[in-house]
Amino acid sequence: MGMVGGGRGAFIGAVHRMAAQLDGTIELVCGALSSDPERARASGRDWFLAEDRCYGSYREMLERESERDDRMDFAAIVTPNHLHYEVASAALERGFHVMCDKPMTLDVGEAERLVDQVERSGLLFGLTHNYTGYPLVKEARRRVRAGDLGTIRKVVVEYPQGWLATALETTGQKQAEWRTDPARAGAAGAMGDIGTHAANLAEYVTGLEIESVCADLTTFVEGRRLDDDGNVLVRFAGGARGVLYASQVSVDDENALALRVYGERGGLEWRQEEPNTLIVKSTERPRQVVRTASHGLGEEAARNTRLPAGHPEGFLEAFANLYRAFAQAIDARLRGVEPPPGADDVPGVHDGLRGMRFIEAVVKSSQSDQKWTIL
Amino acid sequence: MGMVGGGRGAFIGAVHRMAAQLDGTIELVCGALSSDPERARASGRDWFLAEDRCYGSYREMLERESERDDRMDFAAIVTPNHLHYEVASAALERGFHVMCDKPMTLDVGEAERLVDQVERSGLLFGLTHNYTGYPLVKEARRRVRAGDLGTIRKVVVEYPQGWLATALETTGQKQAEWRTDPARAGAAGAMGDIGTHAANLAEYVTGLEIESVCADLTTFVEGRRLDDDGNVLVRFAGGARGVLYASQVSVDDENALALRVYGERGGLEWRQEEPNTLIVKSTERPRQVVRTASHGLGEEAARNTRLPAGHPEGFLEAFANLYRAFAQAIDARLRGVEPPPGADDVPGVHDGLRGMRFIEAVVKSSQSDQKWTIL
Amino acid sequence: MGMVGGGRGAFIGAVHRMAAQLDGTIELVCGALSSDPERARASGRDWFLAEDRCYGSYREMLERESERDDRMDFAAIVTPNHLHYEVASAALERGFHVMCDKPMTLDVGEAERLVDQVERSGLLFGLTHNYTGYPLVKEARRRVRAGDLGTIRKVVVEYPQGWLATALETTGQKQAEWRTDPARAGAAGAMGDIGTHAANLAEYVTGLEIESVCADLTTFVEGRRLDDDGNVLVRFAGGARGVLYASQVSVDDENALALRVYGERGGLEWRQEEPNTLIVKSTERPRQVVRTASHGLGEEAARNTRLPAGHPEGFLEAFANLYRAFAQAIDARLRGVEPPPGADDVPGVHDGLRGMRFIEAVVKSSQSDQKWTIL
Amino acid sequence: MGMVGGGRGAFIGAVHRMAAQLDGTIELVCGALSSDPERARASGRDWFLAEDRCYGSYREMLERESERDDRMDFAAIVTPNHLHYEVASAALERGFHVMCDKPMTLDVGEAERLVDQVERSGLLFGLTHNYTGYPLVKEARRRVRAGDLGTIRKVVVEYPQGWLATALETTGQKQAEWRTDPARAGAAGAMGDIGTHAANLAEYVTGLEIESVCADLTTFVEGRRLDDDGNVLVRFAGGARGVLYASQVSVDDENALALRVYGERGGLEWRQEEPNTLIVKSTERPRQVVRTASHGLGEEAARNTRLPAGHPEGFLEAFANLYRAFAQAIDARLRGVEPPPGADDVPGVHDGLRGMRFIEAVVKSSQSDQKWTIL
Repeated sequence: MGMVGGGRGAFIGAVHRMAAQLDGTIELVCGALSSDPERARASGRDWFLAEDRCYGSYREMLERESERDDRMDFAAIVTPNHLHYEVASAALERGFHVMCDKPMTLDVGEAERLVDQVERSGLLFGLTHNYTGYPLVKEARRRVRAGDLGTIRKVVVEYPQGWLATALETTGQKQAEWRTDPARAGAAGAMGDIGTHAANLAEYVTGLEIESVCADLTTFVEGRRLDDDGNVLVRFAGGARGVLYASQVSVDDENALALRVYGERGGLEWRQEEPNTLIVKSTERPRQVVRTASHGLGEEAARNTRLPAGHPEGFLEAFANLYRAFAQAIDARLRGVEPPPGADDVPGVHDGLRGMRFIEAVVKSSQSDQKWTIL
Repeated sequence: MGMVGGGRGAFIGAVHRMAAQLDGTIELVCGALSSDPERARASGRDWFLAEDRCYGSYREMLERESERDDRMDFAAIVTPNHLHYEVASAALERGFHVMCDKPMTLDVGEAERLVDQVERSGLLFGLTHNYTGYPLVKEARRRVRAGDLGTIRKVVVEYPQGWLATALETTGQKQAEWRTDPARAGAAGAMGDIGTHAANLAEYVTGLEIESVCADLTTFVEGRRLDDDGNVLVRFAGGARGVLYASQVSVDDENALALRVYGERGGLEWRQEEPNTLIVKSTERPRQVVRTASHGLGEEAARNTRLPAGHPEGFLEAFANLYRAFAQAIDARLRGVEPPPGADDVPGVHDGLRGMRFIEAVVKSSQSDQKWTIL
Repeated sequence: MGMVGGGRGAFIGAVHRMAAQLDGTIELVCGALSSDPERARASGRDWFLAEDRCYGSYREMLERESERDDRMDFAAIVTPNHLHYEVASAALERGFHVMCDKPMTLDVGEAERLVDQVERSGLLFGLTHNYTGYPLVKEARRRVRAGDLGTIRKVVVEYPQGWLATALETTGQKQAEWRTDPARAGAAGAMGDIGTHAANLAEYVTGLEIESVCADLTTFVEGRRLDDDGNVLVRFAGGARGVLYASQVSVDDENALALRVYGERGGLEWRQEEPNTLIVKSTERPRQVVRTASHGLGEEAARNTRLPAGHPEGFLEAFANLYRAFAQAIDARLRGVEPPPGADDVPGVHDGLRGMRFIEAVVKSSQSDQKWTIL
Repeated sequence: MGMVGGGRGAFIGAVHRMAAQLDGTIELVCGALSSDPERARASGRDWFLAEDRCYGSYREMLERESERDDRMDFAAIVTPNHLHYEVASAALERGFHVMCDKPMTLDVGEAERLVDQVERSGLLFGLTHNYTGYPLVKEARRRVRAGDLGTIRKVVVEYPQGWLATALETTGQKQAEWRTDPARAGAAGAMGDIGTHAANLAEYVTGLEIESVCADLTTFVEGRRLDDDGNVLVRFAGGARGVLYASQVSVDDENALALRVYGERGGLEWRQEEPNTLIVKSTERPRQVVRTASHGLGEEAARNTRLPAGHPEGFLEAFANLYRAFAQAIDARLRGVEPPPGADDVPGVHDGLRGMRFIEAVVKSSQSDQKWTIL
């Protein structure tokens, strides 16, 4: 794989690198790790990339890699949002599969064009809605699909963080800077960065699509240019209702993504900060504490687990599950065989489009006097 | 005190009795414990009331008690909602102070008339929004008032229960029957029964008034006549935003009232099912676990605590705190002295009116296409 | 009931009063609430006792009460430990049933004499090992008895507190003073005060008797005259093994009594500070969270629960369960009928004797070079 | 690095591989991954090792690698215990640094010889007491060293597992087989496998040495040849006391290593299954919840953390911290420079010797009638 963005100073680049390489089936062979050519090459050296594959720009990387016999198999795009589309598009153009960070593009228009291009290309496109990679998220989805809960009635998904409770973007912190800049982040702040994760997680687990939203977005920190908090009423196709909220000003909350799903006869509760526990609720019997690598799990959870019960797996391992499945899909193509079960369990370009529509809808809804805005 | 309602088969009558008598400062001396005269008298005997003070109806009780020299000091009204107004009004008429269960009346009209009557009468009126009685709820309020959190930005208050996930009201269960009957419960189901607790708790702790709401109420159980689930976006006077939800179909959730408040530089989190813990968040230092009867508490918490740290106090003790304060206020009047600190810390008729306006607003909002409905 | 000890300044007197009266079946009618006659009478007035039943000493109380037609039904003894025996003995002498605080006496000799006297008298004797009063402790016991766990293998019971981490007894704190004074507390400090609760809880739930102990008691706070920390290896009759520890110097631990029991095919875990949760473990299925007033409970738990699920019951309610059962047993005697189920579920004089033997054994063991000391 | 053991069917081999390679500073270049040559080579191919570096035996590996210019830098030994000494000794003999799994050897004699050999060789020797790799374990140690707790009084360390509650070793499960076989596991079962981790963790965090033990080891599962449960009273040099227990029959407990340390004025609590939380207790203020990558941490924790707060790091990351420090120490040697801070923070051969003495002492103590056995 080759990486675009993610070099020195970025947080998410190292995550992608560690996650991709965790199982020994993917090797990072090249990169254009910064928009600054100098910094890009230095970052490549930090990671022991071959000198001639530390590229100064993604264009250079795509061009040169496409000429090599041992060319990279896919490009991982971990830049700020505004570059996702152009890099992805260029990579697909050159015939590379793409793994892209979320939100997928800057707006719905770009997203729709990308869907088209991916479909025409026949190439693989993965989107790192990494929270779907946790084994117990997959178990939750399996149980909903199996009908354990009956018809879903209610979904509560929340994603409070507190890191932007103050004007961190004015202190030179890079992450805060671009994430609060509409030109680089897109039309939404908290809702774009983490609200989309929440929406994706809810849809992934329940299998239900968000149909309409009623949103109240706020910018609490003075001078900030994007929302840093948003509360949304949600209606799902088929009649389920819900609440979704995302916040970057929830003081001292870290990365507290949490999902609760209730059906006619059961419920599920999962919290990202303690990801190895899934609470299973029922109208019939005491609450169960289902644990990673322990009793009562389906094969989706099993094949996304690396350690025995009680050996905590975390964020990186979940992230790695997306990469591993993506690599299996590519490998199957290369070898012309059927991909193994689960190789298709990677969020893709349609999830990305849904995410962009979600952002567009909540922003529009927040400015509207009408109650419901359709996605 | 004399009790109206709450006899055999009721849950809340015994709660009021135990709570009122916990500290030995209130004695239950008479009752009209059921609308059925026979049942009323039998219930009185269950509780060892004097034979001649087991009344067959509240009218009889008010009349006869008002003639006694050792008449009861106040009436506790624990009937279904539709009777609150008429009983309270009659009791006030006879010169009795009143402690009333919530929601205060059947609608806003009754509530307004009751406010008038209480104000004209000069009598004391308490409303059992009992969750305000917990020591750590009082501590949370004290910290907000003291400015520990800075300006409040966001409030998340939720009250999920699961006991009505099935059509329990069709099985003969009395609690379920009247709570799902508009004639006895009022215009809202979950929102009236527990949503009002959530709204009251948020206002009590933050000192902010809910200004407008955007509500999505649903009846999930077929045949049910009132909402059993509701999600609400909330705007507070002064600019704070929030989410409030209440549900009776959240399978296997018990009585999971929870409040999270976030300000500029701090936050608070409290959960009713583990009421002796208050999580204190800050932009400056690690999260603190403040515990009942332990470090860092103000005198409001201290005087509402009966046991040393680690000796769990629960629902009854919190309920008893309201009764004790109410009794102190009455006692001070009787003795013509200044009431002790905290004697006024009992939700009253204005809180009751706010609750009724909240119910009216969420029901109206839920039927409206407009986003915001003003309280 | 009449109370001996527990007046002004005492913590446990108010607990006994509130607990005894919670259900309206017991009335506190008289007391000798302090060893200081003046203080005794003033304390009686605090609690609204009739002037002529505020006695200056327990002897006076026993004598005068035994002459009354409406004499108290039983005496509750809540003095420091050194007075338990003489008061209990005198009360039995006069024909009163006795409810006594723990540990039962000052030493094994007194305990043995008390067993004799109780047995000869035919009177009822209850011991407030109050932690057995929690509904989920009773549920735990029921499950062990029903064989859900198979043969018990291991028991871990711990009781860490931190309130004596400093020399609190030198500051005038009454509780600390007598509890660290061998003349009033007996041969052990932490082990006597709370170690006995731990031992009793383990025996109550498992139904197994502690056969031998290997103890390491320590006094960490300089100048203190009794142990403030103790660690004990435990062997139960029948082959189960365990660990028991009690501590008063475990900084910032409140009253963290906890019990874990493991059998061949199941396990149980209960923590006093969150008493409404019982963790149920199994070799076969995910962990269950059994909750007070919810699914899967036997009738022992049910009849010791006053509120619906999610309405936390705490220390006082558990304490009250002992008093209620004791009152039922007395009432049945008075009426010459069969006591209702559960009326015998009150720790008694034999449990008290076992507690004293436990104290004697751990103190002896701690001073011995031999590994095991038999109880 | 080259690996000995850990191939197909082993759990811990993959852990070492993923952990070692996580940061991109170590590459697994060769292996003798099984004692069965065929299986060894097949396992090497699974992991994409070069064909000529998939060795059939560790002797072959050491010999051939020592002849290469690009020879491996160190050997990682992940075999069952009985082979640790001979492989480590042979590797050191050939001049390779060694990273070895724990317990270090089969008995104290081997351990002492290994200490000698390491010291004579001047080579680096690391021992994977991996739990010391967690950032908050390092933070706990830092706080004890900084005197935050005052003099340490009490340590409670427990390590309950339930996976051997039944005779799993008779079902063909490889892990269970060798761990219950004295010839391969050594003199102790649970105490050797996980009790040593507990002892090491207690010593690592407190900086205190276990001086004497009083142990009660039991084999609960019929036919098993080693202890599957053990309870130990512990005395530390300097006067601290403690309890240590390890169990493999604690039904449904996963890998519940937990440490509580109490000093004169503070305490600490850490649980492996929720490793990103450290509870900090004080006599002065409310309990704090210190979190990985958040407030109040020293640089030891900081440099052992890869992700922002709320992005759970787990077992693998902690394991990787040992490997990264070890690699830094080797790298510094190779480059003749001063190793960076923390490069020496890897358990070593003396910790290994202490572990073997601990095993020897608890086994001896368990068979003795004397109370205390000195390490």
